[in-house]
Formats: sequence, C-alpha cells, structure tokens
Amino acid sequence: MADAPARTEIGVTTGPIRGSRKISVGPFGVKMRAIELEPSSGEPPLNVYDTSGPYTDPAARIDIQAGLPNLRRAWIEARGDVESYDAREIRPEDNGFLASSRLGPDRTAGATANGSNKDSGVPQFPNPVRRPLRAKAGMNVSQMHYARRGIVTPEMEYVATRENLGREMLAEYARDGESFGAAIPDYVTPEFVRDEVARGRAIIPSNINHPESEPMAIGRNFLVKINANIGNSAVASDVASEVDKMVWAIRWGADTVMDLSTGRNIHDTREWIIRNSPVPIGTVPIYQALEKVGGVAEDLTWEIFRDTLIEQAEQGVDYFTIHAGVRLPYVPLTAKRVTGIVSRGGSIMAKWCLAHHKESFLYERFDEITEIMKAYDIAYSLGDGLRPGSIADANDEAQFAELYTLGELTKRAWAQDVQVMIEGPGHVPMHKIKENMDKQLAACGEAPFYTLGPLTTDIAPGYDHITSGIGAAMIGWYGTAMLCYVTPKEHLGLPDRDDVKTGVVTYKLAAHAADLAKGHPAAKMRDDALSRARFEFRWRDQFNLSLDPDTAEHYHDQTLPAEGAKTAHFCSMCGPKFCSMKITQEVRDFAAKQNAGADSFLAATPVRPELVEGLPSSSPTLEEAEKGMAAMSELYNQTGRELYMGAGGREHD
Amino acid sequence: MADAPARTEIGVTTGPIRGSRKISVGPFGVKMRAIELEPSSGEPPLNVYDTSGPYTDPAARIDIQAGLPNLRRAWIEARGDVESYDAREIRPEDNGFLASSRLGPDRTAGATANGSNKDSGVPQFPNPVRRPLRAKAGMNVSQMHYARRGIVTPEMEYVATRENLGREMLAEYARDGESFGAAIPDYVTPEFVRDEVARGRAIIPSNINHPESEPMAIGRNFLVKINANIGNSAVASDVASEVDKMVWAIRWGADTVMDLSTGRNIHDTREWIIRNSPVPIGTVPIYQALEKVGGVAEDLTWEIFRDTLIEQAEQGVDYFTIHAGVRLPYVPLTAKRVTGIVSRGGSIMAKWCLAHHKESFLYERFDEITEIMKAYDIAYSLGDGLRPGSIADANDEAQFAELYTLGELTKRAWAQDVQVMIEGPGHVPMHKIKENMDKQLAACGEAPFYTLGPLTTDIAPGYDHITSGIGAAMIGWYGTAMLCYVTPKEHLGLPDRDDVKTGVVTYKLAAHAADLAKGHPAAKMRDDALSRARFEFRWRDQFNLSLDPDTAEHYHDQTLPAEGAKTAHFCSMCGPKFCSMKITQEVRDFAAKQNAGADSFLAATPVRPELVEGLPSSSPTLEEAEKGMAAMSELYNQTGRELYMGAGGREHD
Repeated sequence: MADAPARTEIGVTTGPIRGSRKISVGPFGVKMRAIELEPSSGEPPLNVYDTSGPYTDPAARIDIQAGLPNLRRAWIEARGDVESYDAREIRPEDNGFLASSRLGPDRTAGATANGSNKDSGVPQFPNPVRRPLRAKAGMNVSQMHYARRGIVTPEMEYVATRENLGREMLAEYARDGESFGAAIPDYVTPEFVRDEVARGRAIIPSNINHPESEPMAIGRNFLVKINANIGNSAVASDVASEVDKMVWAIRWGADTVMDLSTGRNIHDTREWIIRNSPVPIGTVPIYQALEKVGGVAEDLTWEIFRDTLIEQAEQGVDYFTIHAGVRLPYVPLTAKRVTGIVSRGGSIMAKWCLAHHKESFLYERFDEITEIMKAYDIAYSLGDGLRPGSIADANDEAQFAELYTLGELTKRAWAQDVQVMIEGPGHVPMHKIKENMDKQLAACGEAPFYTLGPLTTDIAPGYDHITSGIGAAMIGWYGTAMLCYVTPKEHLGLPDRDDVKTGVVTYKLAAHAADLAKGHPAAKMRDDALSRARFEFRWRDQFNLSLDPDTAEHYHDQTLPAEGAKTAHFCSMCGPKFCSMKITQEVRDFAAKQNAGADSFLAATPVRPELVEGLPSSSPTLEEAEKGMAAMSELYNQTGRELYMGAGGREHD
Repeated sequence: MADAPARTEIGVTTGPIRGSRKISVGPFGVKMRAIELEPSSGEPPLNVYDTSGPYTDPAARIDIQAGLPNLRRAWIEARGDVESYDAREIRPEDNGFLASSRLGPDRTAGATANGSNKDSGVPQFPNPVRRPLRAKAGMNVSQMHYARRGIVTPEMEYVATRENLGREMLAEYARDGESFGAAIPDYVTPEFVRDEVARGRAIIPSNINHPESEPMAIGRNFLVKINANIGNSAVASDVASEVDKMVWAIRWGADTVMDLSTGRNIHDTREWIIRNSPVPIGTVPIYQALEKVGGVAEDLTWEIFRDTLIEQAEQGVDYFTIHAGVRLPYVPLTAKRVTGIVSRGGSIMAKWCLAHHKESFLYERFDEITEIMKAYDIAYSLGDGLRPGSIADANDEAQFAELYTLGELTKRAWAQDVQVMIEGPGHVPMHKIKENMDKQLAACGEAPFYTLGPLTTDIAPGYDHITSGIGAAMIGWYGTAMLCYVTPKEHLGLPDRDDVKTGVVTYKLAAHAADLAKGHPAAKMRDDALSRARFEFRWRDQFNLSLDPDTAEHYHDQTLPAEGAKTAHFCSMCGPKFCSMKITQEVRDFAAKQNAGADSFLAATPVRPELVEGLPSSSPTLEEAEKGMAAMSELYNQTGRELYMGAGGREHD
C-alpha cells in the first residue's frame, strides 16, 4: 500500500502484485502481468491476464482526483460517428436528496444545488464528464454494429491480444476438455472476436463515455470472466470505501464491477468509480430511479427511468441490468414459492406491475431503451428478476417464463445491433444447473450467460462464496461467460474489503476451473507451471503463480516462518526427514536410467482379470504378466543398484 | 468453551451448538441435534445429523482422562465371538524413540520404558486398553460377516435410526435429484443397512476395541460423509492440540477422523484420540512403521508392519489406509508425471519396491492383513498411492492401473467378509471427475469411494478447501460415499484449529449439496426450513439452521450489530426502506385474494414465439395472449385495488 505514487483523499491500494511485472503487449499496449520464475526452473516468465489497470504499474502516476487516462478516446473519435453535447444537468435527486413530503427532513440536509453532499466528507468528483459523447443522429456506435458491418475495431484487436495472453500461438498445449458445444480457438484472432460479437455470442461492454476502460470480451468462447458487486446502501458505506473496493476488486481479478449503490451520493459515487475504473462498470438503473421517487415503486414512471438511463449513459456506465422480463402475467407465478421474488429489481417491477395492473414499462418501452443503448454502446444485461431465491424454487415456471421473454428481448435488441448478455440464477442444486445453461442457450440464441453463483445449497450462510463457487465453476464449464461473485457476507450483511477479496479470489478460481474443464488452451499452462514449482520446492514461484501470493506465503510462514524454509526442499506436512516429492525424484532418476518404457512395466502386472469388472480388455493376463515380471527383474538387477546407492550409500537385500 | 463440566490438562470445547438441543432417538438412544424454531414459524424442531458426541451434551460429564463411555461394549460381548487377551507390550519405538545410530541423540531424550515422552508435558493416557478384544479362533467379527449371515446387529439398527434423522417416514418430500444409479430409500430400515453392508456397498467402521464409537455408515445410498485429517508431524503439533482438534472437528460435522501423526508420541497421541472419540478413527499404519525404522523406507519389513497393525488394532483404530495397490510394475508409470507420486504412503511403498526390486509386501501379504482386519473388524481404506498430485497427472495410466488392482484386492477382502472402501484422488479437472467415479464403481464392485477433494485447479494455494470443495461436491453427487476434507493450509502448512473448522464446514456443505443433487429425501428439509426462515426474517432461526451459527451471526452483527436488528424485518443489503422480501409478501397476498390461478396468468403472456428458439410448444400465441390479457385486466379491476391500498394507503393511476 505504501507504494502509491500519489496519495489522495480517497486511499486506494497501489503497487505491483507480489512477484509480477507489468508488461505491455502488441501495438495496442495490452497490459498483462508476467510472473518471473526462479532461474533454476529454466522456464520463461508466465503471462497472466490482468484486470488491475494502472494501479499495479509502478510506472503509472495514480491521481484519483484526475481519473485514469483515456485509453479509448482517440479510437472512438476516429470513427467519426459521435458528437459531444451539453450533459444533462445534475439534480439533487440524482444524489438521493428529495424535498418530497414523504421523506424526513434529514434527507435534504447537506444537499447542494448540484446534489453533492457537502456533509459526507466526500467531494464531488473534480472533473466529471461535462460534454459527453453520443452517436450522431442516425448512427449506431455499438461494437456489434461495427462487427456486423465487418469492421474490426481497436477494441476487438485489444481483446484478441488480451485473450491470447501475449502468446503467438498456444496450440502447443494439447486440447483436453469437454466444451459442451463451445468453440474456443487455439489462437484468438481479431477476426474471430469480430465474428463472435457479430453473432451475439460475445460482447465488449464499452460505453463511449468510459474511454478509461481496457476492452474485454464476455462470451463462452473466451476466458470465463467474473464480476464483483460493490455499492453503498441506506445503512452503510460511503464513496471513499466504494472506490477503494473497486480498485481492490480489480487487483484480485474482477473483470467487471457493478455499482449497486442505493443510498445517498449515488451519482457522485458512480462518477468517482467510473473515472477511476479500467474495467467495465455495470449498474441497475432502476435502483437509482427508485431513489428518485423516494423508494415508492408505484411512483416510478417511464420518464424518470429514461432520464436515469441518460444520466448514467453520459457518465459512462458500460452495461445496464434491465429487468424487462418481469412481466405482469408472470408475477403471480411466484406466489407459491418458498422465497417469492428475491431480485430487488424484479420485486420493484413486480410491485409496479401489480400496483398499476399494467404490463411493465420496461417491456413496453424496450425498443426505446435500445435506442438509447446504441447511441452510447451500452450493453444490455437482461436481468433475471424472477430468479429463484432458494433451492426449493429453482427451475420453476416463473423463472423459465421470464427466460423465454429474455430470449425474445435479445432478438429485439439484436435487431438494432445492441449487445446483450443474459442474467441467470441464483440458487440451484447441482442436478438442475445444466438445464439452466441448455435452456438459456436455446432461448437466447447463444447470447452470453451471466450468472450469480448459483448457490448449490441454502444451509451455509457465512460460506456462500463456497456454496455458490461450486455452482459457478460448474455452470462456467457448461458455458456461462461471466460469473457474478458472491461474498461470505451474502444474505447476512454488506461485504467489507476482506470479503470482496475472498469473493473475487473464489470466483477467479471457479472461472479458472471452468476454463480448464472447457479445454481452454491458455488455462492449463498456469496449473502446470505451479505444479512444477510445487514439485521442485520452488516456494517463491509457487506463491507468485497463485491467485493470491500474499495469502499463500502467509499460510506457509505460519508453520515455517524462517526465510530459509522458502528455499528448503521440504515442507511442513512431512518435515525434512521424509518427503514424497523427494522419493518421486528417485523414481524418475531410476526410470531415466533404465531403458524399458512404461509399456513393459505395465505388461508385468499380474492383475487377476476375473476379479475386476471394469478392467480394459488390453490388460495383461497372469501368464503374460509373469513373463514381463521376469524380464523386469533382470532389468532391475542391471540398473537398480545405483538407485539405492544414491539414496544414502547403503546396500540392501 | 466455558461450559465444560470438567476441565482437564487437555482442553477441549464443550457445550451445545448454538440453537440446538441434544435429543436421543429410538431404543438405541441415537443422538441427534434438534433445532428449535421461533414459535411464529409454526414449524416443529428440525432434527439434524450429529457427529459431535457427548461434548455438546450439557448432561454429559466429560473427562478426557477417562475417555468416553463404552456404548458398544455390551453389544460386542453379547455376540459371544470375542476374547480378551494381554495387549502387545508398548515399546519406545511406538512413540518414535529409537536408539539407532542413524538418529540424532535428541530423538531418545525423554523416552521412558513404555515410550511415553515425559518431556512433552503430555502424560500417557491413564487408562489405555490393557486387555483388548479379538475374535476367538476361527471367528470373524466384521459387520460384513454378520450381514452376510443375515444378522442385523445393533450397529446396523443404530445406523438406520441415525440416517432417518429420527423421523418415521421422509417420503413426504418429493424425490428430486439425479442419482446416477444409486438407490437411496425413502426410509432406511435396519434390513436395508444389513443388505448394503452384505453387498459391500456400505461399511460400518467399528473396531471392537473402539466401543466408544457411535455407529455410522459410509455408502452411496446413505448421507454423504466427510473425514477430517489431524495429526502431528516432525515439525509441529502436540498431543493436546490433536485431541482438541478431533473434538473441534466432530463439533462441526466430521463423520470420521484420521490421525496422520508422523512425529513423536505417535502411540500415545492415538490412544488419547481414540479413547475420546465418538467417531471412527482411521490411520495410515505405514507412517508409524516408517517411524519405527527411523524414516528409512527400505528398512521396512512385513514383520514391523504387521506388528504395527496389531498395535493399532488393539488400540481400536477403525479403518486402515493400506497402499497395497502400489505395485512394483506401476512405479515407473509415474516417472513422466509433472508431480510424480504425491501420496506419502504411495511413495514409501514405491521406494521400498524399487530399493528391493520386489513386489510390494502389502500386495503379497494382503490376505494375511485381511486375517488381522477380520479379527478386530477393521475396515480397509485401500489407499490410492498413485493418485495424481496435479491437474496434469489426472486420470493417467498409473492412477487407473492402481485402481484396477484395488478392485482385485476388494474382491479378495470380501472373500473373507472384510469391509472395504476405496480411496480416490486428488487433483482432477471437472471434466475428468465423473470418469473416476464410473471406473471405481465398475472396477471395485460398488465398494464405497472415499476421495480427497478432488481439487479442480492447482492455482489457488491458500484456497484449496474451495478448489477441492468444488470437486468434492461433484464427485459426491456422482456417488462418492465419503469426502476427505482439505483445509486452506493444504500444500502450505499444517492446519490449525481455525483451518480445521473451515475445512470441515466447507466439506459439510459440499456433502450436503451432493445429498441434495442425489435427491436424498432428508436433505432438502433443512434448505427449505432455512429458506423459509430467511424469507420471514427469522434471523435467529436462519443462524441456528446454518452449518455454522456462530459465523452467520457474527457476520450479520458486523453490519447490524443491534440486538433489535435480529428481529427486524429487513436486512443490511437493502435497508429498512425497501425490501424485495416485503414486496413478495404483497404479491402473495394479492395472489391469494384473486381466484385466477397461475395458468390464466401465464396464458396472458404475449411471448413472440418466432423470436424464441427454445420456447415450449405449449406457450401461447400473441392472439391467445391478448385474450388472456383482457381477462386479467378485468380481474385486476375487481380485486387489485386492495393491494395498493394496503401498500401505503395511497391511490395511483
């Protein structure tokens, strides 16, 4: 933390991740982390995907008050299809200050003309977007629109380099996985990215008013991504800690961050976050719209909602969760559920629909919303407002009724070349997870799936990062493109900094387990590098190659704190005297010395086939085995003695 | 901790688990925990499976120096097939004290005649087994032997009551799961238990010299079980902390405990643990045998090993891990692996085989070992000494060659009516997990599978309880009967008390997720009870129904510490003003007031089928939907008004 080149009123963690060097790859300067290995390994540095932005780059000057550099601004302007204009005026209600009679007088205290809260101790962001960009009249600035016209954008090129981890070709890694119909290439070309975006199988969330973001793709033929939720609520948190949480979440691997703030300073908090975020930012605009009407769902109107979309579009939000699938007729389907409607956005819209006995304005106005999305290149994250909130409610009629509507809306958004992903559950027992993926792919034309967990049991509050990490890994394997993290505090309270880290690392390992199982050619390299380090007692390499080097080293030091132990060829599990890794090396040395291959050893196995049901037909019979055994015995007599001489200088019978 | 009725030199945690009452069910007094719910719930107490023994029973007098009561002693003696005899004499080397020249002089310090270490501050257990039991000549005291002769033992009756959670019939819970060929009954009868044990599909580990144990079954037609490893090593830990860890592990749900001690005081440590353990204790006898020969694998002999088996059999170890599948011809198959042989027992035997270029004495003497097992009713846990130690090595030739041999050995053990389970990996990516289960079932005649994780990626040291919890839940679903826990310290150091708890709770939730997915009729009750509590804001019930009430409450209190918040009908995520649960209740009230069922609502859905690929053919057309919509609108006009009146007394358009 002390490495920050500049400290600001809002403190964030800067400095390199332990053992990593920031590198810049290709003509677009894609940032990655190179993990240097001990010279004894004889291995090159391992490049890993990096979401942490300039904060981990010692060469970068961090100034939270100024925000990050505008990486994409020149690319956006070069396309010649945008115009700048005077931003919508910021009003007190944007920050949660209302003079409405339904609110207590304390809600108005401290509000200034532009809605910033002077009492909160957090100033308005000094340099907000005053002249935002939007598409010129009749233009469409979505990545999908370019892709469908055959244009490979710098964003797509950036994504291709990033997904390849800076390597020219990963095909040296043999494919090993079960991809359930996904088609992950050995090497990602910009043209492949374009094609995936054009088909709607991947999105690159990239609001033209968030030029600070480093382009990334969400799609099942790319690395599985994870999202971290942050945000203040009416009872806790403030702007400073939310910006800090964002920087902290991306340090550990969050690919996108959702700001789910519902309390005060909601506009200013978002401005600070976006201006300082190198990853796409998502929001649920209905949350802010609800604040603007004093928390009374029935008072929501299309006009207030639309105004909120414009407000957030101008700030640079990259994707919007829109619960347009919560339709009036589906609401009573939830009445018999154990946990009803648990989605906040879903219940807001359900209440509105029932109160007005009207179809949802989000559904009715969907094409108008899409018009806004395409003017800024905001991606839809079509919300699953009727997702199950318990094991009991998984895969029910309400859930799937909404999913089919999300499929319909996907096609309507695609008709305007607007990018779409689909949100998914929630709480689902293991045996019902795959059905979610299969139905989503079929109903939504392979639009990327973005799921919350799912939790595979309800009985472990306090450990729901794990109950859901199980479901997340599985559904990621089946084809989900992005996994929304769950922290240990889920269902109990708001996550603090430690919870955010635990949630991110848990989801990072789940996403990686999914990449491995899908057979992503880049995934296994890291496992193998770490396993080799483990086998060779390169402790430092083992820590540095892990998702959380700090925790790995800390745990090691609890048992063997001495610095010398980090280079010791033993670990605390077996102690210095005896070690299975050491013996394995002897086996290896022995095998290297004798020329017989593994086949002749295996042929010597006197398995009794009559006792083993599942035995492959190629296994040797007893007779064959005896012959092989005799041959091996001879071989041992010729070469074996050296082994035990090496193991201590003693001789044995 | 302060609830202990008696404090001893070895401190252990006693007192009830928060919110639970100890109950005694059926003629055998099977202990369970009843979780009382708030009267407002209108629900009966929920019984849960309890592994914690007398330590959580306020009525029990705990005296670590005396050990637990001998629950099973009368049952064992009543069968008339055992005799007591003078125990094998305890020797210094049993506790790791050798005068051998290959050891430093410090290894002998403090050794007394019987091998106890006076300097360690931990006395010899005051009341060790001096007159152990064994089968009379020609007799076989294994549960499998009784089962095959049609005898239902008290142990089997105990197991049946325990698995049913004290309920007469669980069939009210609709079956919902995918069991991959398992055949879990709605209601477990003693006869069902007998039949499963007779077939070898389940085991009841129950050494006749461990009468303190409460019988439990390991088999895929029963609840999935978990094991916790404890044990000191040459560099850390002592007797007191190991006994404490055992009590701590069973408090949180460990169904069995393995003592993997490798350092000094190995005999005494085990005695303290067994005499105080209500769960079956497993060991890896080769670890102690190796200590007896000063850590030099080549010096191991059948005689030393056999003597160690008798020593541990007399103490009451319930199952032995025996690495008899590590055969000479398989050893070189590991030479090309990334991480070679990672099983400690496997590498000991591999080294012995290579050093002597002989077939393993464990394999050669297997039937003699079985003779010992049946004289005490010790179950085999056939060790997977060649399990993969990395993703790269999963499902390779060495691993499966050993598995087929374990299948052969299973049949040989069964020929003498000795109980068997099979150990499994390890490190396996998700897409290769099911193959392990399928091959194990086929090769080993459905003997229970007992796996370590498996870890689904290698890149997260410090989080390997999670990387492996993912694999454990999955393989448990596929049919694994017992899951060996992994703690956060795996690969880094020895687990402390906190790590033990984290590992146990993580595996408990994984096992429960597996029970849910298999459709175990008792599993879903707890999820549903907790979900109802969550929906109804019964915070105390939610905590008490969880696997770790202390952590759940602690996390809740970090955000909303006030006692009043525990009965508040809101949570910190949305705050008091707006709550999705509250809105759901309004939906429910509304649905109850109007008579139209869900069907007519769904019929009103104007989904556009041409846009949705996966839409069921029964979905309404636009025309049908419009008709339904008109009907619903009328209905709303009749009944809807009451809803919004109830939601604040205001009227709206």
